[in-house]
Amino acid sequence: MKDKSIDQSKRGFIKSAAIGASAVAAAGVAAPSIAQKKYNWRMVTTWPRNFPGLGVGAQRLADRINSMSNGRLNIRVYSANELVPALQSFDAVIEGSAEMCHSAAYYWQNKSEANSFFTGVPYGMTSRELTAWIRYMGGQEIWDKVYDQFGVKGFMSGDTGTQAGGWFRKKINSIEDVQGLKFRTPGLSGKVWQEIGASVVNLPAGEIFQALQTGALDAAEFVGPYNDLALGFHQVCKEYYMPSFTEPGLATELVVNKSEFAKLPKDLQQIVEVACQAEYDQVASDFYANDPIALKQLVDKHGVNIRAFPDDILEAGAKAAMGIMTSLREHKDALTRETAESFIKSLTILRTRTEQVDQRFGMAREKHFIYK
Amino acid sequence: MKDKSIDQSKRGFIKSAAIGASAVAAAGVAAPSIAQKKYNWRMVTTWPRNFPGLGVGAQRLADRINSMSNGRLNIRVYSANELVPALQSFDAVIEGSAEMCHSAAYYWQNKSEANSFFTGVPYGMTSRELTAWIRYMGGQEIWDKVYDQFGVKGFMSGDTGTQAGGWFRKKINSIEDVQGLKFRTPGLSGKVWQEIGASVVNLPAGEIFQALQTGALDAAEFVGPYNDLALGFHQVCKEYYMPSFTEPGLATELVVNKSEFAKLPKDLQQIVEVACQAEYDQVASDFYANDPIALKQLVDKHGVNIRAFPDDILEAGAKAAMGIMTSLREHKDALTRETAESFIKSLTILRTRTEQVDQRFGMAREKHFIYK
Repeated sequence: MKDKSIDQSKRGFIKSAAIGASAVAAAGVAAPSIAQKKYNWRMVTTWPRNFPGLGVGAQRLADRINSMSNGRLNIRVYSANELVPALQSFDAVIEGSAEMCHSAAYYWQNKSEANSFFTGVPYGMTSRELTAWIRYMGGQEIWDKVYDQFGVKGFMSGDTGTQAGGWFRKKINSIEDVQGLKFRTPGLSGKVWQEIGASVVNLPAGEIFQALQTGALDAAEFVGPYNDLALGFHQVCKEYYMPSFTEPGLATELVVNKSEFAKLPKDLQQIVEVACQAEYDQVASDFYANDPIALKQLVDKHGVNIRAFPDDILEAGAKAAMGIMTSLREHKDALTRETAESFIKSLTILRTRTEQVDQRFGMAREKHFIYK
Repeated sequence: MKDKSIDQSKRGFIKSAAIGASAVAAAGVAAPSIAQKKYNWRMVTTWPRNFPGLGVGAQRLADRINSMSNGRLNIRVYSANELVPALQSFDAVIEGSAEMCHSAAYYWQNKSEANSFFTGVPYGMTSRELTAWIRYMGGQEIWDKVYDQFGVKGFMSGDTGTQAGGWFRKKINSIEDVQGLKFRTPGLSGKVWQEIGASVVNLPAGEIFQALQTGALDAAEFVGPYNDLALGFHQVCKEYYMPSFTEPGLATELVVNKSEFAKLPKDLQQIVEVACQAEYDQVASDFYANDPIALKQLVDKHGVNIRAFPDDILEAGAKAAMGIMTSLREHKDALTRETAESFIKSLTILRTRTEQVDQRFGMAREKHFIYK
């Protein structure tokens, strides 16, 4: 009898478990599964905490992922130099000391010169052209191939839009005034300015103000009015040139360690990808709204003069940019060649839309629709 | 004995259920809760199924929400007229026969004339200006007030970008050629063209081709090359004007029934909102990439002539658009006045960026950077 009773109890267990499962199914409630596991991830960034646009965007991206995943993918954000030095963020993701970094691909040109194209290059794509290339003209696929070399994957996560040309202590009347001019501008922009005669200096953001003040620099460019106003450059320079022809847009990225990403269930992978795309729009909108508001303050309250670069500088800059583009198309690294080729081919198509449609509308509105 | 055996079996059920629950907790797996409830929602749309850009975007939005929620928010998409007639989509969401609709706010001008501003108005905001206004300059807050009147909430979900001006059977040399011209263009665009002398006709998309062919129409505008190529207008017209000055952008929306939305847990609400924002970028990128590809086909394979509207038409159009803007600022409905005021005030700021930065960069690139 005893044995039988145990037997019945066992059968009861099996039976009730089955009932339990079907009751769960009937109520339309998902059975607990691997999908409910919690992941605690670290995101390192190349931005100061709460840096307008970019630092704020990194934190908001993490918050949105946390919130959409109901805390299952919980991301702690480290500002520049908090966990690793800013410019070691990419290596941190490769090595796994952080699962993600929020940065700009052109910081990692030492890994691959193709990386500039995923951020922005002189006379290259604007923000909307870049998303068209990345999402519909093979850009993401090439980016994936480039980053596969390092075991990471990149998603676009924001954009400053077309940047300002920079702050100059004196008005620039022609390319003669550029000769020997001590100008702070990094990366390929620096290469272009060097080639047209400037003496290019690379200084971290925090040292620009003082260098302009002491005359160690004659000019400097950083981002645009929204960020520049916060750094106070208008206190030492009154000549503000725009737009930049070397930084027509600057896309930020979220870099994720591929093997860690592969461990996430599909819904969390999708949440990361979609959150990055939403943030691209959010950050671009932030700059687009706040740049002109800051610019108005710079002009109205701080007496800044808005100037455009003289045509001979724009022309010489274009020649220098074409030289750089050609050297990247003929680069010794096959993936850099492939990236440059795809970028140029796509730009050639996309600019027809920008020029025939967007610019023409803007010019018609500028001329005829004067309404306040 | 029989009774006892049943008793034991019952105890077994209770005991095993308890073990099951604690085993789940120990593994760090969330217990099934309200958050795991499944929602089956219906999305009606104003687009044909798989319509390039817009119909495809509605389906992809639903797919992304399904995927990010791991099937917890499962959305079935109905193309135009499948569940309700296209132009009853908004009412369907108000009444609850669908939880969502994917559409364009200006279709619901009969509900509030403010709605045009959330889509696009003559000589108004471009896509990037619109996101800046909606996300950072109070646009979403005003939209929420307008839609609160109907118990729904709107999220931007896509954008065609600046549209084409339209297909004309004959070349247009001046505003004289517009007088009495039978032109298909809807909404506020129609009002502007009517005011500058055209005889405006409103025809559904499916009837445009034949009306152009028979001469019932002299001209028609629909969207842009990507959509227009599919509809075959080039077979009957060779003069393609661009850009449009009456449709500088066309944002689509996702409208959600507010009380249904309030029933969703916070993570699903966030998933809907973020998915819409990602889709805004995705659809805008789709048009930006595919419009110029289609345009090249229209020119190279189909002998279409690309033309710009003569300046006197652009000027007269601007005057008409200003008149409409003034009438909306002085509208009898307070929320329409508030929307128009906020839109104009924001546009006045935003266009300084478009004109001083984006357009100037584009013009410099167009002039100096000729590289293939």
